[in-house]
Amino acid sequence: MTERERTGEPPRNRDPNRNTLWARVLVDELVAAGVDAVCISPGSRSTPLTVAFDRHEDVHVYSHLDERSSAYFALGRARRTGEVTPLVCTSGTAAANYHPAVIEASQSRVPLLLLTADRPPEIRDSGANQTIDQEKLYGDAVRWYRDVAEPEATPRKLRSLRTTAARAVTKATGTPAGPVHLNFPFRKPLEPTPVEGDVPSDLPDTATDGRDGPFVDTTAGVAELGDDALRDLTADLSEPRGLLVVGPADAPGIDPEAVAAFAHASGFPVLADPLSGIRYGGPVRTTPVIGGYDGFLGERVREAWPDPDVVVRVGASPTSKPLREYLAAADARQYVVDPAAGWREAEFTATDLIVADPSRLLGRLSRLLAGPGSTAWRDRWTDAEAAHSTVIDETDAFWEGRVLSDVVDLAPDPATVFVSNSMPVRDLDRFGGATTATRTVLGNRGASGIDGIVSTALGAGSATTDDLTLVTGDLAYYHDMNGLLALGRCDVEATIVLLNNDGGGIFHMLPIEAYDPPFTSQFVTPHGLDFAPTGDLYDLSFARVAGEDREGFREAYAEATESDGSHVVEVVTDAESSHEVRADLRERAIERVLEETT
Amino acid sequence: MTERERTGEPPRNRDPNRNTLWARVLVDELVAAGVDAVCISPGSRSTPLTVAFDRHEDVHVYSHLDERSSAYFALGRARRTGEVTPLVCTSGTAAANYHPAVIEASQSRVPLLLLTADRPPEIRDSGANQTIDQEKLYGDAVRWYRDVAEPEATPRKLRSLRTTAARAVTKATGTPAGPVHLNFPFRKPLEPTPVEGDVPSDLPDTATDGRDGPFVDTTAGVAELGDDALRDLTADLSEPRGLLVVGPADAPGIDPEAVAAFAHASGFPVLADPLSGIRYGGPVRTTPVIGGYDGFLGERVREAWPDPDVVVRVGASPTSKPLREYLAAADARQYVVDPAAGWREAEFTATDLIVADPSRLLGRLSRLLAGPGSTAWRDRWTDAEAAHSTVIDETDAFWEGRVLSDVVDLAPDPATVFVSNSMPVRDLDRFGGATTATRTVLGNRGASGIDGIVSTALGAGSATTDDLTLVTGDLAYYHDMNGLLALGRCDVEATIVLLNNDGGGIFHMLPIEAYDPPFTSQFVTPHGLDFAPTGDLYDLSFARVAGEDREGFREAYAEATESDGSHVVEVVTDAESSHEVRADLRERAIERVLEETT
Repeated sequence: MTERERTGEPPRNRDPNRNTLWARVLVDELVAAGVDAVCISPGSRSTPLTVAFDRHEDVHVYSHLDERSSAYFALGRARRTGEVTPLVCTSGTAAANYHPAVIEASQSRVPLLLLTADRPPEIRDSGANQTIDQEKLYGDAVRWYRDVAEPEATPRKLRSLRTTAARAVTKATGTPAGPVHLNFPFRKPLEPTPVEGDVPSDLPDTATDGRDGPFVDTTAGVAELGDDALRDLTADLSEPRGLLVVGPADAPGIDPEAVAAFAHASGFPVLADPLSGIRYGGPVRTTPVIGGYDGFLGERVREAWPDPDVVVRVGASPTSKPLREYLAAADARQYVVDPAAGWREAEFTATDLIVADPSRLLGRLSRLLAGPGSTAWRDRWTDAEAAHSTVIDETDAFWEGRVLSDVVDLAPDPATVFVSNSMPVRDLDRFGGATTATRTVLGNRGASGIDGIVSTALGAGSATTDDLTLVTGDLAYYHDMNGLLALGRCDVEATIVLLNNDGGGIFHMLPIEAYDPPFTSQFVTPHGLDFAPTGDLYDLSFARVAGEDREGFREAYAEATESDGSHVVEVVTDAESSHEVRADLRERAIERVLEETT
Repeated sequence: MTERERTGEPPRNRDPNRNTLWARVLVDELVAAGVDAVCISPGSRSTPLTVAFDRHEDVHVYSHLDERSSAYFALGRARRTGEVTPLVCTSGTAAANYHPAVIEASQSRVPLLLLTADRPPEIRDSGANQTIDQEKLYGDAVRWYRDVAEPEATPRKLRSLRTTAARAVTKATGTPAGPVHLNFPFRKPLEPTPVEGDVPSDLPDTATDGRDGPFVDTTAGVAELGDDALRDLTADLSEPRGLLVVGPADAPGIDPEAVAAFAHASGFPVLADPLSGIRYGGPVRTTPVIGGYDGFLGERVREAWPDPDVVVRVGASPTSKPLREYLAAADARQYVVDPAAGWREAEFTATDLIVADPSRLLGRLSRLLAGPGSTAWRDRWTDAEAAHSTVIDETDAFWEGRVLSDVVDLAPDPATVFVSNSMPVRDLDRFGGATTATRTVLGNRGASGIDGIVSTALGAGSATTDDLTLVTGDLAYYHDMNGLLALGRCDVEATIVLLNNDGGGIFHMLPIEAYDPPFTSQFVTPHGLDFAPTGDLYDLSFARVAGEDREGFREAYAEATESDGSHVVEVVTDAESSHEVRADLRERAIERVLEETT
């Protein structure tokens, strides 16, 4: 019985036609299931959905003109919060523009809800305007797809719609989380125009107003090992040399306290990816977090050190290639822990797959493990970490990696820091060592594209009062310049550190570099763009720092984070010299690590 | 026997590894099948394909940083030429960025060839970097999909690859033409690095060098009616009042001479869509082309005039809604002619589907038809056309439609004119009457999106020495600003007429306009962007013309088309007043048509 039924209040009859009713019911149930924001792109066919979201006072509407940017913005928001962010677009290629972000959301397990408006079924495939085949548009990249029934004000259809809304949120936030696609055919009128008889006056209240609270309450369990399996695992992990590898986190992240408790109980050093949610902030205070491994792990260290006995891997596959190669070569029992039975280890050397929620598993294990007798193994790793840090600290070179370590150092506390593919995330991994300052560091490592970076960062920023910094290369900045419109349109403030090497960054990592022209023209991708006019276009301050001027960068960055509004701090770098510094520092770090630990 | 076999020249052994060989063989066969250009986006995994295209001296390489823009550029080029344009991108979300253009290509029957690089099969779905599920990525929107075998230098595999290349071109240019997707897994080395034993020295020449000319010659027939069916159709079309409706053309377009011959033989007026390839240029000299129907057809004219007896429809569904509604209401036998058995008529009132090549069918019919006894019916339409033109000519208002008619009037001869959705193509339809000047008019009416417009236009421009004009609204301009990079990077010159009503155009066509705020905020989409900085970003001249200044526009446009380089002529318009002018002119045109023709 609803409130109105109890109080005898008459039906509100506020829905002038079936489309208005249909969309309102959908939005009511989404809000009841926890949705509090939506990203909408303008269009005609989606009018019922747009009006319903716009009318609901508990939903914040973000409006985006470019659907590709919109989807990445929603992705960033959902990545930051772990909560479902719906998207609304009109029929046609608008929906296809979501596809890149849908794939990233699928691979990095971020809950999105794609609400695409469609033309009515009878005009599909008939040459009707702006009508495409939207069924299963995103293939296997969504957790669930439904071509929703045509709107009709009947109790069963409305119950079905309410249930569908609840299930969509459940599927999107399930294990693994990910995108869900609901396709909504609508026929005219699309506006809240009264249509006689379209919404019968004798509909039961549960049809028009649902129930108090959500129409369906979902309670979802997570995978947990049985007691016997847990005891066996505890025994297997009771070895002198173990490692906990925490890869990029699935939204909403792994529990840092469980990680800390496990590290304490097991004596395992924690190798924390920059995107793990563990490398920065609170966890570092109580956990032996190793962040510099990308800078020294390799064949020489592996030959000088004993191999680990056991490795526990949680989260996605680590960003660091040296770490992945080290783990592949180690003669160790290696556990991949994944709540969704995913196999996130592309060297195929792991020995065990544990299907369990990682936070709960680590917490339970920490209560059973007795710890190692000696701290020698852990000390070796923390000594190596210190040696690596010293090498980085000692150099007075200024290269792309230094920009990342300076951002980690100087960003306000708390900060959300978003790093683009392809070099910034790698430079952060290697040079952005662990700190106790609160930095929520995010990146798009599901598919590791350079698309949608600006929008994902701004979407993440929209969900927090943290100071937001985006560190991006010039190709990623160019690729999603349209995303900058959200600064003003969606009222997000950001400091954007733009590493501009004119398209050359990743090229110097590739063997193709060794070949003469003409190949260079297709791989080094100089665009010759002067990005300063993007400041005028999108109302950003734009400061340019020369590549050798570290103090200039630190001052410009600090000033940007301290000022109101949004700012670009462009650092003009040289890809080749940055690459040489990286190689040189790695050599020196390995030497120093070997000196200090063997 | 190849040239080298005949002359006894030793094998060239020029391919240092299997990937180099594999990609070269593919490109050799594509070129043999007619490919002469490719759109490549930088990336690592696609290196073998990139190198092979770059090395081939008969292929023009267009380099694009944003894959979405790249695909639309290829679409524009293929739309303009009717020939297959391949695309190359790296693995991951790069490929998903092609999706909007793939859908447009599918729906408007434009031949594209999507060559996506992929990671090797064994690391798919294992958390490997930049690895997504690319299989059947575009669903039903492609004519053909193959996950190509892993490269290996064996005669059968190489024959399979050569055959696949030939088949891909055949499928892409078949009936209906459209996109084809080949997915190429590659493992390292991706560069032309010598790999001992990778390419055996005893491979037969046909494996490494193919055959003289293409490995497979394709000869494709088209659908033609049998003689009896053709005679029956001739009899059925021998009526006093017939219409030939030519909708937007499939690439490479309908044969204007066949249309002219049919019109002459049948006495049917030709209602030619602005995208039909018939409304402008040569055909107008010899054919009774009606272009103004969008401005006067409707209930009043239909009631005052006799209905047509028969209607023959070729091409896609017409842009004009008044025309579509007129045809739906007409009591006429109505033939949809489509070579691919498509049903391109969303009112479902047509009576007959003719599966036949339209150019051949019209040509054959023109040799059998005896023509009508009287010219009264045709005269009625040409009188109406003249009356409509007079009304347009007489007004001294300057509104968005006038910009289109001025462009048709002033564009150099010959010109390629690309018009964006949503309003420019409609305004061109209504106000851009038939002229004998050569204008190849193109638009993206397959899915009618506002995405990819800049790139499609520039791609079309890259394929012709015509002067290129793009007329775009501000939303479409914003959506694909990244596409402007092709001006310099791909050496295309364009005059861009930017109709800037700050996002408000289509809104005034929608009933939602009648509602108060707050809906307005989600439908009128003011972005407040000052686009002048795009001139600085992309080295364009940027001129702004006030909305009432027709002479200013004509001067700025003429100057732009006469100068070197690329230019934006922005016309600041008011969506609401333009909408009022349209409504007013339509009223007056209907009055005048009724006066003159009844």
